Amino acid sequence: MPVQGTVAEGFENVRDAFAEVVAAEPGLSAQLAVHVRGRRVVDVWAGDGVSGDSLLALYSSGKGAAHLVVALLVQDGILDLDRPVAHYWPQFAAEGKGELPLRELVGHRAGVIGVDGGMSPDELADDRLLAQRLAGRRPYWRPGSAYGYHALTIGALTGEVVRRASGASLQQVYEQRVRAPYGLDFYLGLPEHAEARYLPVQPLMPEQQAIADRHAPAPDSLMGVAFNLNATPPTDLVAYANTRAVRARGPASGGSVGSARGLATLYAAAISEVGGRPPLLNPGTLSEFTKPHAIGTDLVTGEPDHFLLGFEAQAMRYPELGADAFGHSGAVGAQSFADPSSGVAYSYTRRRFSFGGGGGAPENRRLVAAVMRAARQH
Amino acid sequence: MPVQGTVAEGFENVRDAFAEVVAAEPGLSAQLAVHVRGRRVVDVWAGDGVSGDSLLALYSSGKGAAHLVVALLVQDGILDLDRPVAHYWPQFAAEGKGELPLRELVGHRAGVIGVDGGMSPDELADDRLLAQRLAGRRPYWRPGSAYGYHALTIGALTGEVVRRASGASLQQVYEQRVRAPYGLDFYLGLPEHAEARYLPVQPLMPEQQAIADRHAPAPDSLMGVAFNLNATPPTDLVAYANTRAVRARGPASGGSVGSARGLATLYAAAISEVGGRPPLLNPGTLSEFTKPHAIGTDLVTGEPDHFLLGFEAQAMRYPELGADAFGHSGAVGAQSFADPSSGVAYSYTRRRFSFGGGGGAPENRRLVAAVMRAARQH
Amino acid sequence: MPVQGTVAEGFENVRDAFAEVVAAEPGLSAQLAVHVRGRRVVDVWAGDGVSGDSLLALYSSGKGAAHLVVALLVQDGILDLDRPVAHYWPQFAAEGKGELPLRELVGHRAGVIGVDGGMSPDELADDRLLAQRLAGRRPYWRPGSAYGYHALTIGALTGEVVRRASGASLQQVYEQRVRAPYGLDFYLGLPEHAEARYLPVQPLMPEQQAIADRHAPAPDSLMGVAFNLNATPPTDLVAYANTRAVRARGPASGGSVGSARGLATLYAAAISEVGGRPPLLNPGTLSEFTKPHAIGTDLVTGEPDHFLLGFEAQAMRYPELGADAFGHSGAVGAQSFADPSSGVAYSYTRRRFSFGGGGGAPENRRLVAAVMRAARQH
Repeated sequence: MPVQGTVAEGFENVRDAFAEVVAAEPGLSAQLAVHVRGRRVVDVWAGDGVSGDSLLALYSSGKGAAHLVVALLVQDGILDLDRPVAHYWPQFAAEGKGELPLRELVGHRAGVIGVDGGMSPDELADDRLLAQRLAGRRPYWRPGSAYGYHALTIGALTGEVVRRASGASLQQVYEQRVRAPYGLDFYLGLPEHAEARYLPVQPLMPEQQAIADRHAPAPDSLMGVAFNLNATPPTDLVAYANTRAVRARGPASGGSVGSARGLATLYAAAISEVGGRPPLLNPGTLSEFTKPHAIGTDLVTGEPDHFLLGFEAQAMRYPELGADAFGHSGAVGAQSFADPSSGVAYSYTRRRFSFGGGGGAPENRRLVAAVMRAARQH
Repeated sequence: MPVQGTVAEGFENVRDAFAEVVAAEPGLSAQLAVHVRGRRVVDVWAGDGVSGDSLLALYSSGKGAAHLVVALLVQDGILDLDRPVAHYWPQFAAEGKGELPLRELVGHRAGVIGVDGGMSPDELADDRLLAQRLAGRRPYWRPGSAYGYHALTIGALTGEVVRRASGASLQQVYEQRVRAPYGLDFYLGLPEHAEARYLPVQPLMPEQQAIADRHAPAPDSLMGVAFNLNATPPTDLVAYANTRAVRARGPASGGSVGSARGLATLYAAAISEVGGRPPLLNPGTLSEFTKPHAIGTDLVTGEPDHFLLGFEAQAMRYPELGADAFGHSGAVGAQSFADPSSGVAYSYTRRRFSFGGGGGAPENRRLVAAVMRAARQH
Repeated sequence: MPVQGTVAEGFENVRDAFAEVVAAEPGLSAQLAVHVRGRRVVDVWAGDGVSGDSLLALYSSGKGAAHLVVALLVQDGILDLDRPVAHYWPQFAAEGKGELPLRELVGHRAGVIGVDGGMSPDELADDRLLAQRLAGRRPYWRPGSAYGYHALTIGALTGEVVRRASGASLQQVYEQRVRAPYGLDFYLGLPEHAEARYLPVQPLMPEQQAIADRHAPAPDSLMGVAFNLNATPPTDLVAYANTRAVRARGPASGGSVGSARGLATLYAAAISEVGGRPPLLNPGTLSEFTKPHAIGTDLVTGEPDHFLLGFEAQAMRYPELGADAFGHSGAVGAQSFADPSSGVAYSYTRRRFSFGGGGGAPENRRLVAAVMRAARQH
């Protein structure tokens, strides 16, 4: 399967690495886009039916966009990280959550990862409905005492705070402040006219799925609750993303759709001048949102994840990056981030679920290493 | 060695798993009892001289009964987890412990794991004497800043709070509120008339003991202090349990005696209707006591133990269980818990010390898996 | 290479272990000194050109002397661990560091591990200059929320507090209160007249250096920042110690010079009567400084380091030691500590960088085991 697209001079090794990745996995459709200091230097893709303009289900990659919105509102003084969530959203105070500061909510420390008996498909498609359901619930650990990945709820929770403080939904603020001005092909709420470019997500290969099923978490474990496996029936992430109603609303936790090009531009715009606009985040905001906020074991995933504020710490995964590299992976195996110290913005997307793709498919290691080798000599 | 006792229809696979466990370890005497939603579905035993009525030394399994008592007093409003321990027990305020809330004491965060030079046999047999000795001591870490297994002291410490707040010893409250009403064969203080059913605990096999001795912790390490290896002579757990004076008083940390049937019924009664009585714990109390309170590395054992409030988190060990499964193991290799989401109450006991039995003998994994497979289809 | 020096009766096995260590690494020059309850029982050395009086670059071993000074000033009531650093040093309050208590600074929790773009050689040679540079900087994590090894900055930071509170530099207090009274051959600031006994530090063997280079941390990672690899050029620790200007000033983080004999005597004096003087630290101070203050993963080194207050916890590395054993390693592979429960004070030094020497060269395990075997029978 030939690699298409372009790379800037000095980034030929990234094209080679991408070609090796594609060659190593028959049937893989993938995109890779990279900016350095705001300039696009890699824009390649490969695989049946996929182009640079194809739109893929990118799941939790949307948490990156969601927390970019939160960062902008903090930067504007509309949100204050050290105020209680209940200051903005009184109903959230129920069941011992009244004191929890916004900072801890954004840092996955609230413990509001799901509900006993599971969330409904309607709730998972609609952040406002889900927020209503979650507000009064008991947390799964003492708020603020620990952290765990709020896989399907974080976007609804921070989104409700955004809505209450700004008067617009998180999706609307994202559209107005970020997506539209840069013309990004990365959506929280895919418009009807863009549906033609959406390529449905593909499940794991059957033999991989069989292995995954054997290792499935218990429905009522923290992992099971966080991924809604305690619902009847349990949530199927493939069917979820391939549902038009989900894509239309673009729930901020898991309903994002876009291309590598779109998402790389988002991260470039966060830290660099892009299209004549200054970086979205100033140094103070960047410093706040790229500090570690979640040290130790993630109660949901069991991994030492080292969340930053809403973003996933990337240096733990890719040792070539600076300590303040921030981004977010998506369930399918996608990975995207900005690395402020080198000016690199990176996005890799894939259409088929990756085996072992939680936190970014394994091939990202090789791709990131190649990108950083080229970028440092740039 | 044939398996005796009964299993309900649908739990034959549990009997088979138990038979395999017994066949795999020559000389093993063991009991297994399981309830589902209050109904006994497994009640089996095997091994020389053991019956379903035999009483075995179950060590730290008694911490489960002790913290069930604490939970009941919190539920009644007699204890407040967020009050300082010193509110109930002024002498405890010495050496920087004045602010420590009860919640942190119960969560193994006080640092009062022993004393320099060791505790005496009399102190280890008598919770009130031990509490007097501990009240004025320096903690081994800053109270509340970390956690570590208070192997031989937690029962005396929480017991003293119970005594001061309720006017009765923890052992008395347990007898009146839990043991007697259900007629449980699980004792904190074994009456003389039940001694005839006590089977003395058996030590490790000699070759196993030799290996264990080679890996013994240093006497003055946190592990050494917590297990009283810094005393002269160091505490021998086998001799400890086989001493009538210890069994008679039933110190809550390590002096419990009982059967699998008794302990499974205790956990069943905690979460289910048993014998026409409503569950001992209401949903609010259950939620409080089954939240994680000890994230990270246990300073004493070095394990990531994830203590709940007084109870050991079970889902870390047995992935089939819900996040709120709570229970406690005993040094000999015993394991017991309740799993609220499935309604399962489980107790496995053994007479001979298990090699690698800290936190429950290894065979519990196989047995729990078999139980949960049957219970989910029930 | 024959072992020279002396051992007391009963410590012949330590001489044998040292001889095996020396035999196993061609070209190694090393010293080992041990006291038990204030009496020197081991004083041996081996290797080309080295004697018991040789002075070696001991790097972070100086952090042990620095925090002994802090402990003495806390003991005197001149410093209060629970006061904000900014109480002593107002400029430190910048960038959200105003509330951080001294205790957290000493416990490597401030996040002030370096500066973007790196520190200059002048700053790294002069604690006062470095403190000025660091005071106004943004921390690399939220102060107090986590810990990480402040490899090149902790001495300048705590040193500035000492200077402000006492009127004398940390180096001066060390000289007057500790080094001169005992005549210790361990210096923070090597006088000109002692230079003749200094043996320049030797780098890793070339093939080892090549491996280390391949695994070098990214310049902007937390590890890179903490070791000043983000400077141009990055700091070379061998050249650093071999610079007279560095040795002359003796920066407290990494500029110490001395012998095993000197450093073992320092730790002996901390806990035992030495030369007719009472122990430097009383039991209360000892208890405060030997409690764990840094549980979990070190954000800089990635290790579960379990820092005490300013000192490294030793029981994690050497299981024969008591929980309150405190000391500090040096980059070259040196290791030194006091073990209060056995009365042992230990110092091992080496001239050539050890491969895998972070936190003490691997041979310390064998040497400590031999020392403790002999000391326990003493």
